[in-house]
Amino acid sequence: MTASVTGAAAAADPSDCATSFAISGRHLDYIAKHRFERPTLVLDLEAVAAQYRALARGLGRARIHYAVKANPHPAILRRLLAEGAHFDAASRAEIEFCLEAGARGDQISFGNTIKRGADIAFAHAQGITLFAADAREELDKLAEHAPRAEVCLRLIVENSAADWPLSRKFGCTADKALMLMGYAQERGLQVAGLSFHVGSQTRAPWMWEETLDQVAALWQSAIAAGHGLRLLNIGGGFPARYDATELLSAEAYAAEVMARVEARFGGVPKIMAEPGRGLVAEAGAIAAEVLLVSKKHENDLHRWVYLDIGKFSGLAETMDEAIRYPITTARDLEVTGPCVLAGPSCDSADVLYEKQPVQLPLGLRSGDPVVIHACGAYTSTYASVGFNGFAPLDVVVI
Amino acid sequence: MTASVTGAAAAADPSDCATSFAISGRHLDYIAKHRFERPTLVLDLEAVAAQYRALARGLGRARIHYAVKANPHPAILRRLLAEGAHFDAASRAEIEFCLEAGARGDQISFGNTIKRGADIAFAHAQGITLFAADAREELDKLAEHAPRAEVCLRLIVENSAADWPLSRKFGCTADKALMLMGYAQERGLQVAGLSFHVGSQTRAPWMWEETLDQVAALWQSAIAAGHGLRLLNIGGGFPARYDATELLSAEAYAAEVMARVEARFGGVPKIMAEPGRGLVAEAGAIAAEVLLVSKKHENDLHRWVYLDIGKFSGLAETMDEAIRYPITTARDLEVTGPCVLAGPSCDSADVLYEKQPVQLPLGLRSGDPVVIHACGAYTSTYASVGFNGFAPLDVVVI
Repeated sequence: MTASVTGAAAAADPSDCATSFAISGRHLDYIAKHRFERPTLVLDLEAVAAQYRALARGLGRARIHYAVKANPHPAILRRLLAEGAHFDAASRAEIEFCLEAGARGDQISFGNTIKRGADIAFAHAQGITLFAADAREELDKLAEHAPRAEVCLRLIVENSAADWPLSRKFGCTADKALMLMGYAQERGLQVAGLSFHVGSQTRAPWMWEETLDQVAALWQSAIAAGHGLRLLNIGGGFPARYDATELLSAEAYAAEVMARVEARFGGVPKIMAEPGRGLVAEAGAIAAEVLLVSKKHENDLHRWVYLDIGKFSGLAETMDEAIRYPITTARDLEVTGPCVLAGPSCDSADVLYEKQPVQLPLGLRSGDPVVIHACGAYTSTYASVGFNGFAPLDVVVI
Repeated sequence: MTASVTGAAAAADPSDCATSFAISGRHLDYIAKHRFERPTLVLDLEAVAAQYRALARGLGRARIHYAVKANPHPAILRRLLAEGAHFDAASRAEIEFCLEAGARGDQISFGNTIKRGADIAFAHAQGITLFAADAREELDKLAEHAPRAEVCLRLIVENSAADWPLSRKFGCTADKALMLMGYAQERGLQVAGLSFHVGSQTRAPWMWEETLDQVAALWQSAIAAGHGLRLLNIGGGFPARYDATELLSAEAYAAEVMARVEARFGGVPKIMAEPGRGLVAEAGAIAAEVLLVSKKHENDLHRWVYLDIGKFSGLAETMDEAIRYPITTARDLEVTGPCVLAGPSCDSADVLYEKQPVQLPLGLRSGDPVVIHACGAYTSTYASVGFNGFAPLDVVVI
């Protein structure tokens, strides 16, 4: 099976810049050598570790808290822990995954701003001291269930440059954050600092600048108001390579971001980052199969290609066609044509790419294997428990 | 806990027409009397059975094949089998669920137009004889793995009147269907008839007319071409009550649809229907909890209300705000105001209703129980296996 991408240009400087997704790797070799009964995510642990080291080199003094939600597979957590990573958990279950992988409570942050009181108490009992909040009621819960905990207040920021922009769901405005700092102190909590998120899959370091300026302005106001902030959490946003457009290497990207952070926050004692997608996405690929190729009408210009995996069985991030996964087949040297790509379920919403069709070989037919690349993040856990009777993704870690 | 809905008008004729969702029921009594550790779907089997009987009375001679994908819970399948239902399966696993519930192969149709060859062979070995198809390649698979099987060709129809309109994913055009009938015969298959889908949640019987006219035109062409069609599959589309707008009772709706069917297909020997949502949605409700109520800014007009259930843990049909579930709380007699409703995950896409906010009591706060109504369909199996570490829905059948 080949893994070329039409239109992928050669990188000007391969060490700093890659213009295509990974066309080789242990996981792709594994897929090429095996047959799969059903859709299977193959993850290369060595690639995860290598990406961790690259990001860590670029991030310098910023501590990495891996965003567990991107992929909570126990083997990934254990490996990242061995590499020196800390973790950011979105729920009690994710905290338990980290503890089971061997992490201590003080290596885990509980970064979800929406927490059940009982889960805060659980985290507190496990020795977790760092929490996120963006609302008065959340601070009340923290004060009750995790007295004297450290809190990062999450700021809402402009982030329209990201491929998967975050909505207004998380964070609060700057003036509200200042007010909440005072309230947190009243409640006996320690205001550690600020957190934000530039938006998932933020492709270029310059896209961070406007956000960092907003955060720096608030930081100065907080210092002026007498709050002894000491921790800046720059969140995630580190991109994965999904297509042939130019993207810095992970290390260069992280270093460029940190240069922009240090220019504004050079004197801040502690900095942390929460890469998820950027750490694990490229380390995984899904082995899938074509179930049907058809046309609605003999004169249709577009074929419909139906795979044995869809929006409800692992590829939820194709929602609104936000994430466009590269797809390769064994026929990639043949003539290609546009097609609508859809999943196997009886749900009409289970269409992956229709607004912007996919180029696939004209010879493609039922039974052909396909490889969906850069699937290490937000796939295995997004899969439904059994919509239409389709089982969740199989996962193989190598 | 009250279950009133603001704006629900009294029905003109309560026996034929209901203008609100069910405000009472065994499942709601059960929820009122219990506390739940995590989001739980409570299903009333008696309500499912009663709805089956109502639909069966209205559908008359049309055989009901329950669309298993709506809710494959074993207790539902067993109960519907006892009531006399047949089943339509979307996958091998759904066929297995039906067989485990006691159904025979000849009581099951395999209605997904996108099937794995091995799964067709499995179905054939289990005595399933009725399959759907809309493409030449699918007919090839049927001829190979289920020789001499009966095939319904699925027609693509206009269905923009439905609340959850089906895309062009399924079906083919009329001229292509005619061509495929000839091809199916060449391949030794039996062309049983035609199938179509008006679109899920089609609110009024008149909305079927345009679609039925399209199907009738093709039916006549097929007869004229010498195809001995004998089975019309009218699919699903039977609506559930999600709001206070006027809706016929299930029996009256089904009878009105059948009157329109018989006017066009009176001489057709066999008719079948595949209700899913319309059969089980109203029999279930989800007991959930408020995790946080906040404002992004003190002067915000809208509050954000975060629940312990969201788009990735059962409420996937809130995608594009397509299905709007009625929500009640213990504070429903208090003053209400608009709010954005969101789920508990760290995913910014996990927002349920934002474009059209929800009216909820101003006094709502963290820890308050809420009931999400009419959740019996497309919830428990849509839930992700563990996105953000949140477990799938608990299900209790009473």
